[in-house]
Amino acid sequence: MPRYALKLEYDGTGFVGWQMQDNGLSIQQVLESATAKLNANTPTPVTVAGRTDAGVHAEAQIAHVDYATDWPPNKLREALNFHMKPHRVVVRAAALVPNDFSARFSAIGRAYRYRILNRRARPALQEGQVWHVQRPLDVPAMHEAAQTLLGRHDFTSFRAAACQAKSPQRTLDRLDVTHTTETIEFTVEARSFLHHQVRNMVGTLKLVGDGTWPITRIAEILAARDRSQAGPTAPASGLTMLAVRYPTEIFPV
Amino acid sequence: MPRYALKLEYDGTGFVGWQMQDNGLSIQQVLESATAKLNANTPTPVTVAGRTDAGVHAEAQIAHVDYATDWPPNKLREALNFHMKPHRVVVRAAALVPNDFSARFSAIGRAYRYRILNRRARPALQEGQVWHVQRPLDVPAMHEAAQTLLGRHDFTSFRAAACQAKSPQRTLDRLDVTHTTETIEFTVEARSFLHHQVRNMVGTLKLVGDGTWPITRIAEILAARDRSQAGPTAPASGLTMLAVRYPTEIFPV
Repeated sequence: MPRYALKLEYDGTGFVGWQMQDNGLSIQQVLESATAKLNANTPTPVTVAGRTDAGVHAEAQIAHVDYATDWPPNKLREALNFHMKPHRVVVRAAALVPNDFSARFSAIGRAYRYRILNRRARPALQEGQVWHVQRPLDVPAMHEAAQTLLGRHDFTSFRAAACQAKSPQRTLDRLDVTHTTETIEFTVEARSFLHHQVRNMVGTLKLVGDGTWPITRIAEILAARDRSQAGPTAPASGLTMLAVRYPTEIFPV
Repeated sequence: MPRYALKLEYDGTGFVGWQMQDNGLSIQQVLESATAKLNANTPTPVTVAGRTDAGVHAEAQIAHVDYATDWPPNKLREALNFHMKPHRVVVRAAALVPNDFSARFSAIGRAYRYRILNRRARPALQEGQVWHVQRPLDVPAMHEAAQTLLGRHDFTSFRAAACQAKSPQRTLDRLDVTHTTETIEFTVEARSFLHHQVRNMVGTLKLVGDGTWPITRIAEILAARDRSQAGPTAPASGLTMLAVRYPTEIFPV
């Protein structure tokens, strides 16, 4: 059974998230409807690197799927894209991978971007792609506070109640906060994240940015290991999955 | 009568363009519904720097409007934005300007960006914001060809039949073609443009990029002063109005 890795791009707006649910259309459902169509309508499940929440986007989510027959990777990409029309989900690239490759378990790094539109006027061009915050935020203060979170820690304070991970320990490799004129970007990298970890970190750092909390509060929140000490979960719309890293490059540019 | 300049952002998708038309909603109509609401529902017309076509976007279109009463500029912005909900049109900033200022006639420079998504898979995240071209384009060749168009020329070959300008002479100050992984950007600057000039230049340069025409063909097309010699008009979706320049900066950052 040949195994294929898929590099996916999607706009999460209007979807219930990656995972199938009763209350609406999921990315998984759009993709697995297409994978089944190429397999005589037999269910053909897909495994994904990170199950994104409702409204979260991806520039390069990675998934894998097995087929009984050989597909030239480019033909597989074209055929899946044909069947996923007109949904805002596409396969950017497909590649044949070894049978022991797992989009989820082979991943050694995940990168996300979170965007805040920091201005008075609501977004027109970036609607659904940003968190709109009207109060001016102090970007250097947020960046300095963010550095407190780097390294290996118990991230219980930034973990969703529904999180199914066995351990609350994670190693945060990068949390940069930068800005252009009106847009603030958080670039976040780790081997893996707890459920809502990125959005909870952003929602907490925002309270440093708007002056509610001092920079030193972030270390206290982390040490408290108590979700109620941290800030609210930032909205899904600002979050985009940027990249998944594996020991071997699957999609050479 | 105090005069106010407005810096507008809009997503042109689904609009018939700037100008009012019978066949659908225009940006002008959304804005002038709002300007009238702040003026006891009296028609309160707006003058704009550049009347964009259907599907064309703006990050910073400039308009001006007169009111009989004084408005603190920030209040004017907030009130107009309130009345334009939920349309994807917003006032990013408002400023009091001299009575002889015209958004249209005082402008000394206009800048546009045109984006091509150059890859096999259709756009998911950038749907409606790019021209999707599947065939790989040669960016350095397009950039080199574009430089032929710089300076003062008769741009009849790149002018829409419906263009109402008195003269086909224009001075093109910049036409840079650059790219990141999958996105090709044209950055175009001039004092003013003929109708469809940017989209016709892009549609023509694309034929150099895909190898249909040699670089030298662009100079021949320009010299021909014949619209039928140039390439087709590139789709509206890729075009965004970036900036309008005036002798004095109206909206200091």
